Amino acid sequence: MTRFFSPGSIAIVGVSKRTSGLGGMAYLSYLLESGFPGRLYPINPKASEIRGLRVYPSLTSLPEVPELVIVCVPAAQVPSVLEECARNGLKHIYILSAGFRETGTEEGKRLEEEIATIARQRDLLIMGPNCMGPYCPSSRLTMWGAIPGRVGELGIISQSGGITQRLTEYTCFLGVGVHKAASIGNATVLDSTDYLEFMAQDEGIRVIAMYLESVRDGKRLFHLVREVNRQKPIIVLKGGETQAGASTVASHTGTMAGEQRLWEAFIRQTGVIQVLSMNEWVDAILAFYHLPGPRGKGIFLVGGGGGNSVLHADTCIREGLDVPNLSGANMERLRRIVPMAGSIAGNPLDLWSTFQDKACLAEILEMGYSDPHIHMIVVDRLIPRKVYHMPDMPDSTAEVIDFIKENRHKKPTIFTVESEGGDPDLASKGSVLRAQFCEAGIPAYPSLERAARALRHLQCYHARFGT
Amino acid sequence: MTRFFSPGSIAIVGVSKRTSGLGGMAYLSYLLESGFPGRLYPINPKASEIRGLRVYPSLTSLPEVPELVIVCVPAAQVPSVLEECARNGLKHIYILSAGFRETGTEEGKRLEEEIATIARQRDLLIMGPNCMGPYCPSSRLTMWGAIPGRVGELGIISQSGGITQRLTEYTCFLGVGVHKAASIGNATVLDSTDYLEFMAQDEGIRVIAMYLESVRDGKRLFHLVREVNRQKPIIVLKGGETQAGASTVASHTGTMAGEQRLWEAFIRQTGVIQVLSMNEWVDAILAFYHLPGPRGKGIFLVGGGGGNSVLHADTCIREGLDVPNLSGANMERLRRIVPMAGSIAGNPLDLWSTFQDKACLAEILEMGYSDPHIHMIVVDRLIPRKVYHMPDMPDSTAEVIDFIKENRHKKPTIFTVESEGGDPDLASKGSVLRAQFCEAGIPAYPSLERAARALRHLQCYHARFGT
Repeated sequence: MTRFFSPGSIAIVGVSKRTSGLGGMAYLSYLLESGFPGRLYPINPKASEIRGLRVYPSLTSLPEVPELVIVCVPAAQVPSVLEECARNGLKHIYILSAGFRETGTEEGKRLEEEIATIARQRDLLIMGPNCMGPYCPSSRLTMWGAIPGRVGELGIISQSGGITQRLTEYTCFLGVGVHKAASIGNATVLDSTDYLEFMAQDEGIRVIAMYLESVRDGKRLFHLVREVNRQKPIIVLKGGETQAGASTVASHTGTMAGEQRLWEAFIRQTGVIQVLSMNEWVDAILAFYHLPGPRGKGIFLVGGGGGNSVLHADTCIREGLDVPNLSGANMERLRRIVPMAGSIAGNPLDLWSTFQDKACLAEILEMGYSDPHIHMIVVDRLIPRKVYHMPDMPDSTAEVIDFIKENRHKKPTIFTVESEGGDPDLASKGSVLRAQFCEAGIPAYPSLERAARALRHLQCYHARFGT
Repeated sequence: MTRFFSPGSIAIVGVSKRTSGLGGMAYLSYLLESGFPGRLYPINPKASEIRGLRVYPSLTSLPEVPELVIVCVPAAQVPSVLEECARNGLKHIYILSAGFRETGTEEGKRLEEEIATIARQRDLLIMGPNCMGPYCPSSRLTMWGAIPGRVGELGIISQSGGITQRLTEYTCFLGVGVHKAASIGNATVLDSTDYLEFMAQDEGIRVIAMYLESVRDGKRLFHLVREVNRQKPIIVLKGGETQAGASTVASHTGTMAGEQRLWEAFIRQTGVIQVLSMNEWVDAILAFYHLPGPRGKGIFLVGGGGGNSVLHADTCIREGLDVPNLSGANMERLRRIVPMAGSIAGNPLDLWSTFQDKACLAEILEMGYSDPHIHMIVVDRLIPRKVYHMPDMPDSTAEVIDFIKENRHKKPTIFTVESEGGDPDLASKGSVLRAQFCEAGIPAYPSLERAARALRHLQCYHARFGT
C-alpha cells in the first residue's frame, strides 16, 4: 500500500478548469503548490494545458503507467475509468467521487457494487470512494489544503475527509506531525482493517488515530485492534453511536454504524482508547504522542487561585485520577515557601509566585518530581492574568521548558493555557503560548477539564499495557 | 446592601506604596483609572500623599463618614480597624485581608470569630474577609482589574475572587454585562443567602451566577434558591464536591463543603442549574442571558461535513436533546436544494453553501423556523475552513445576524465557531467572530459539545419552569 502515500507519478482523471471547490483541479493546484516531486498527469479529453502542465485525453495516452490514479469524475463514469485503469495495468486507485450507496438510491447502490466487482475481478486496490484519500507530508502529498503539513509519527485512518483534514491542520501547530493519513470514505474495497494492518507494520508510525463510522469485518477489526493497540496506542473516535448519529452515517458513508452495545464491548475488551469529540481526540493524541506512561494516578496541581484549586481537584477526582497529599518532607518545604495568607500550601498548590518567578516554579516542580505519591504534574499558566494584568511581565517560557525537559524523570508534565473569552488579543497570545509548549513536546491544554481527561486516557492505557 | 455597590465615598485602610500585587494600593489605582466618581480616602499613618490624593492617618481623621470602608491590613489588625469603624459610625465594611480560619491555625480561627462577634455587637455589615469584594461597572466600582467592565443584567455571588474576576473579564467580550458582583470569601458575617436575597429584589438583575464552596444555613439557601430560581435563573458552580475538592475548600475559605449527597438533592429539588466548570458556567450564562426558552427538545443542526454531522447528532442525543426529521414539506424543499453527491439533505444538514451563500443559509433557517419539529437551531460556522482555505471570502456575518434577529420567532438560534489548534491567526479570527455574534445577542460557542450542553440546561429549565 506504500504506493498510495508516495507515488512517483499521479494521473488525475477529471481535471476541469470550470469546477471550483473540492475536485481534480483543486488537488492538482495543491500538489503543485506543495512541491510534489513526482510526475503529474491531468486527464481531460477537452483540454490541452492546465497550469502549465500538458493534459492527456485518457489514461491510455500517458507516456508511462502512473503509480497512482485519482478519480474525480461523476459517479456514473467511475466504472468505465476503473476498466481503463485495469486495461492499462494500473493498480492503485483513489476515488474522490461521491454519489454511491450513501445517496440511498438504487443507482448509487448499484454503482458501488459495480466498483467492488471490478476491483475483485481485476485485482485493483481502491481507496474510497467518497473521501479525500491519501495524505503524506514527507512525500509532499498534501493535496487537502492550505497548510503545508508537518512530518511526524501519527497515522490516521478515517471515514470522514473533513474530519481528517481538520485533524491534520489542528495537530500541525501543536507539535504533532503526520506520517500517513488515509481518508477512506465508504471503504468499499480496502477497509479500515486493511489500512490498520498496513500502519501497524509501518515503522514511521507510533500512534494511530481512527475515525470510524462502520466496519465490514468486525471480528478482524477486533483481533487486529487488540494486537496493534498494545504496541501503538489506537485512539478511536466512533461516529454513529446514537440513533440520530447512525442514520446520519447511512447518509454520509452509506454504511451501518453497528450496535452501540457491541462497540462498548469492543472498546472494553480491546482496551483501545475511545474519545467522543474532535477536541477530546486531539487532546488524547497530544498526550500519547508527547508523554511517557505515568506510573500511577497521582496528579500534582500547580497553579494559582483558591477557587480554581478547588474546581481542579474536583475535576481530577471525577475523571478517576488522584490528587494525593505530598510526602511529609515536601509539605514541610512547601510550608516554608508558601505565605500563610492568600495561598494554599498543599496539593492543589495555590501559589502566585509559581507564575511570576521561574526559580520558585522550578523548586515546586522539583518537589513533584521527587515525590513518590506524584506521577503527573499539571501547571496552570494563568494566561488571562498575564494578558490583562501584567502585559509587561518578562516571559520565562523558554527557561521553564528547558527545566522540565531536563528534570522531569519521565513524569508526564503538562500545562493549561486558558485563553477563551472572545478577546482576540487574549486568544492569540494563548495560542502562541500553547503552541510553544507543544512544539517543545510538552502538551498544553485550553482547560483543566480537557487536560485531566487526556491524562486519564494515558494513565488507563499504561495501567493496562505498560511494562 | 446597595451601598456596597454604589458608595458615594470610600476609605481604604492599608494603602502602602511599597506593596505590589492585590491590596489597597492596587484597588486605589484601579478606582482612579476607572474614573470612580465618589470621594476616595486612602488611610496610612505614615504617608501624606499617594497618587495625588491626600492620605489620612486614621478613619477618625476623615472629613466625612465614608459610605464604604475597604480593609486591607494584615489579619491581626482587622479587629481594631472594625472597632474604629464602629466608633465612627461606619456600617459597610469590605475586608480583603486573608489569614483567618482558612489558614487552619488557632489564631486564624480566633480572629475570624472576633470579627463575627464585633459585627454582631456593633451591628456592622461585613463582606468577606479573604475575598475581592464588590464590583459594579455602572458605579465604576471596578477595582478588580484592567478590563473596564461592561454594564448589564448579570448578578454574581462567589466565594472565589479569582473566579469572579475571571468571569467578569470572560463575559465582558461575549455580550454579557454585569449589574453587581460580590466576591464574598469566607462569608463570615454576610452569607451567600444574604446576597441572594438582595439580588432577587434588584430589578437590574435578570440572571444570577453563583460560585459556592459552602453555606451556613442550608435550609434558608434551599428555600431562597427554590423561590428565586423560578423568576431569575440561578446558575451554580459548586466547588468541593469530591474529597480532594472539599479539603481544598477548607484551605481556601475555611469552610465545610458539605455532603455531596445533600447537594445533589438540593440541585434536584430546587431545579437550579448546576454546572461543573468555568467554561460550562459561562456557556450556560450566555444561553440564559441571550436566549428565549425553547418550546421543546428538537434541535436542527446546520453545517458542513459528513463526519461532523454524525458526531454532532451523537453529541446532541447524548446530552438529552432530539435531532428530529424535518417535516415532509421541508424535506421536499431540502431535496431540491441539496446536491445528491457529497452532501446530506436532512437533519443534520451537510451543505457547504450554507457557509458560503447567505441566501441559502437564510432559506435553510427559514425551514427551521417554520418547522413544528424544530425548537432550536445550531449553525456551524466552519471558521478553520474560512481562515485556511478561503481567506478572501466576503464576510456576511452582519447580514446573517440581521436575518436571524428578524426571523427567529423566539426559537433559540446559536452558532459554533471552532478556532482551536495553536494557530494564533485562526484563534484571533475565531475570537472576533465569536464576539461579533455574542455582541448581537446570538451566543456562539467554541464547540458543538459545549453548545449542546448549554442548550440542554436552557431546555431543562424552561421545561420545568416555563410558562
